[in-house]
Amino acid sequence: MPTVFVIGAGRSSAFLISYLLTHAQTENWEIVVGDVAPDLAAQKIAGHKNGRAIYFDVNDALMRESVIKSATVVVSMLPAALHLLVARDCLSFGKHLVTASYVSREIAALDAEASLKDLVFLNEMGLDPGIDHMSAMQLIDRIKASGGEITSFKSYCGGLISPESDTNPWSYKFTWNPRNVVVAGQGTAQYIENGQLRYIPYNRIFSETESLEVDRVGRFDAYANRDSLSYRHPYGLALIPSLLRGTLRSPGFCAAWNVFVKLGLTDDTYTITDCNQLTYAELLGSYLPLQLKGNLRSRLAAFLGEQEDSPVLEKINWLGILGDEKIKRSSGTPARILQDLLEEKWKLREGDKDRIVMIHKFVCRTEGTEKKITSVLDVKGEDQLNTAMAKTVGLPMAIAVKLILKGQIKKRGVCIPTDKEWYVPVLNELQTLGIVFREIVS
Amino acid sequence: MPTVFVIGAGRSSAFLISYLLTHAQTENWEIVVGDVAPDLAAQKIAGHKNGRAIYFDVNDALMRESVIKSATVVVSMLPAALHLLVARDCLSFGKHLVTASYVSREIAALDAEASLKDLVFLNEMGLDPGIDHMSAMQLIDRIKASGGEITSFKSYCGGLISPESDTNPWSYKFTWNPRNVVVAGQGTAQYIENGQLRYIPYNRIFSETESLEVDRVGRFDAYANRDSLSYRHPYGLALIPSLLRGTLRSPGFCAAWNVFVKLGLTDDTYTITDCNQLTYAELLGSYLPLQLKGNLRSRLAAFLGEQEDSPVLEKINWLGILGDEKIKRSSGTPARILQDLLEEKWKLREGDKDRIVMIHKFVCRTEGTEKKITSVLDVKGEDQLNTAMAKTVGLPMAIAVKLILKGQIKKRGVCIPTDKEWYVPVLNELQTLGIVFREIVS
Repeated sequence: MPTVFVIGAGRSSAFLISYLLTHAQTENWEIVVGDVAPDLAAQKIAGHKNGRAIYFDVNDALMRESVIKSATVVVSMLPAALHLLVARDCLSFGKHLVTASYVSREIAALDAEASLKDLVFLNEMGLDPGIDHMSAMQLIDRIKASGGEITSFKSYCGGLISPESDTNPWSYKFTWNPRNVVVAGQGTAQYIENGQLRYIPYNRIFSETESLEVDRVGRFDAYANRDSLSYRHPYGLALIPSLLRGTLRSPGFCAAWNVFVKLGLTDDTYTITDCNQLTYAELLGSYLPLQLKGNLRSRLAAFLGEQEDSPVLEKINWLGILGDEKIKRSSGTPARILQDLLEEKWKLREGDKDRIVMIHKFVCRTEGTEKKITSVLDVKGEDQLNTAMAKTVGLPMAIAVKLILKGQIKKRGVCIPTDKEWYVPVLNELQTLGIVFREIVS
Repeated sequence: MPTVFVIGAGRSSAFLISYLLTHAQTENWEIVVGDVAPDLAAQKIAGHKNGRAIYFDVNDALMRESVIKSATVVVSMLPAALHLLVARDCLSFGKHLVTASYVSREIAALDAEASLKDLVFLNEMGLDPGIDHMSAMQLIDRIKASGGEITSFKSYCGGLISPESDTNPWSYKFTWNPRNVVVAGQGTAQYIENGQLRYIPYNRIFSETESLEVDRVGRFDAYANRDSLSYRHPYGLALIPSLLRGTLRSPGFCAAWNVFVKLGLTDDTYTITDCNQLTYAELLGSYLPLQLKGNLRSRLAAFLGEQEDSPVLEKINWLGILGDEKIKRSSGTPARILQDLLEEKWKLREGDKDRIVMIHKFVCRTEGTEKKITSVLDVKGEDQLNTAMAKTVGLPMAIAVKLILKGQIKKRGVCIPTDKEWYVPVLNELQTLGIVFREIVS
């Protein structure tokens, strides 16, 4: 019986596992879910007769080898840095591998050996990266096939909160790794606009944002992602004049987040010791220029050149960071201390529905006439556990596993789903599962 | 015959080697100078009968061992990362070691073994670190001995240019590692003021500067160094309410340098490929917000909120970075590209005299009365080769070598010159060589 081994039974595995279990009966598969918290794995299996939950510690080499040896396809939901351990065993024992993570240099180096052993090591098969690649490539290939030339491609994605669950002034709650949100944008954003290279350093990423509005979806702020230039090659757009990838946030989010950047509170490179002796207000005060006078809120307002009751100040104040609560952890970087506070305030509550929005904006020229194509995905979550994030990350991986097991994929080696062979069947099936792009042509 | 082996015959070794040669005759020492450029070593030896120039490649293990084996004291002027290779051989063969670099974790770990083998591994024995430690500790110990309590210690140092050689609007030329100047301040500055921790992130380091003036020395801008807090322990000032270390620049330098920080041109973390196809103006343009209109200078002025003929814009323009000259290197980080330009513009010319200024400002209380003590060092270089920088870095090391060879130091193991045993004889001899602190009490 073909066996799928899913490593990691966390929040983001819900749809992945339930899709696999649904197909396991008709296809005659066994689904093994391993986690260091076997209860969590058992919960996801929910007594399904083709499923089995096991305790699994990726760092235990003997255990890792024995479980991977008995699988047909391995799906790793582990943090990206741990995939390599799994991938090496997959090579040794001749197993296919699926992940939603970016291809690291180490994983890329396994390409030749994986090909030789007739294995497929599919990566970047979630939402972003994943659905972004597939939906972009489908449009790019279609435009090119019709003789069009793409002069501009701007692609945006955001993990947001659905309006009915929007209960805070940031219009934001965490639906994915909080740390990534806190350190987002560190470095310099690189993209290209009208043939000119463009660079935005961290100190301006959240102020030099773009406002964009899409009919029936709404208005968003977008900040530029770190490296858009690297997409030119895999997308076959080596000479495109304009290429940008950005992250969507609700209007006003970026301006308020920029306060933490200006203050220096997102730095993750040095540790503040004994910080549990400080209140959040004292911590924030340590980042304000000394010559400012007045209470903390008025000093912060003066520092920012804002009114004390401005929307930006309201957002900052709502987090409680101007208050006299003590910091709980005894030592940590400013970024980690900030993350603790945000995790409390931006937590999904019972019944909260999240939202995924992805927007591709193309400008192309066919026989001298210019056309604008906007393609939009807007997915709402079911509740705080069955999130749109988990759905859009998990289902592409699950469908990929099915395609591999059914022998419908010829591609071998280390790959990402930019090929027709992947994106046609996956996007088609995603449509039947409610993950549907809508196109606006003007 | 005791042998001193000096590794590195670059610009900064001039005074070190000439001091050692001067004493070699009377003390009966041999001075061996090794460099990958043996001509440079020979030039520094200048035919002195107690001197010998050799070709020396630190990465050649056999060569390294054989030369170190025959030395008594080794002085390493190598980049800090290479000291460890030398230090390990010094341990193996029982040789003393002197450097002007910060004690790395790896060097610190050699302490017990060096002590056991009756060796002294002296580090941080140049100007900054070096003379700063010694002159600060001399004052700290004196104030404490007289029953005083130090409530504030602010210490500043700058490698500057002497007024008669100041021929550019930045009032700056390179007298030390240019790269360190370009990436200076990256990270977050940490210090303490009136008992409150203070943090300044990189995006504000060069705008939240201090202006200070010292009688008969002049006025300077000072920006906060990265980590002042770590000096509390070695200086015996664990509970001091105010402690700051800063870097001195001529008035106006920091405001102009901040332009590069704002633009993002000091980033050293990503590479721009094919940058030789760009002019400096095009590169700079890539960092300006797109919506600005007009020529480059007016866009830059608008971005900065400055007049086009402001002192800041004059400094930027003088560098030629607004001009149509092509970038020479084919690929490099923005920081590296900027450094190339600066190295050309801020080069010491024939006869140029540099200048070292160090300022210690103490506030202390003795029996209820507050006293301010300012201690100032102001050293002028002789010419573009015999710089104040080379003098103030090299002479402390040279004197330390003499003290070690004459058996006047009891201290063993890995150390820095914060002890009386070091600072009394070294500061006394530096006085006779024209390196004299002047005290102002108020």
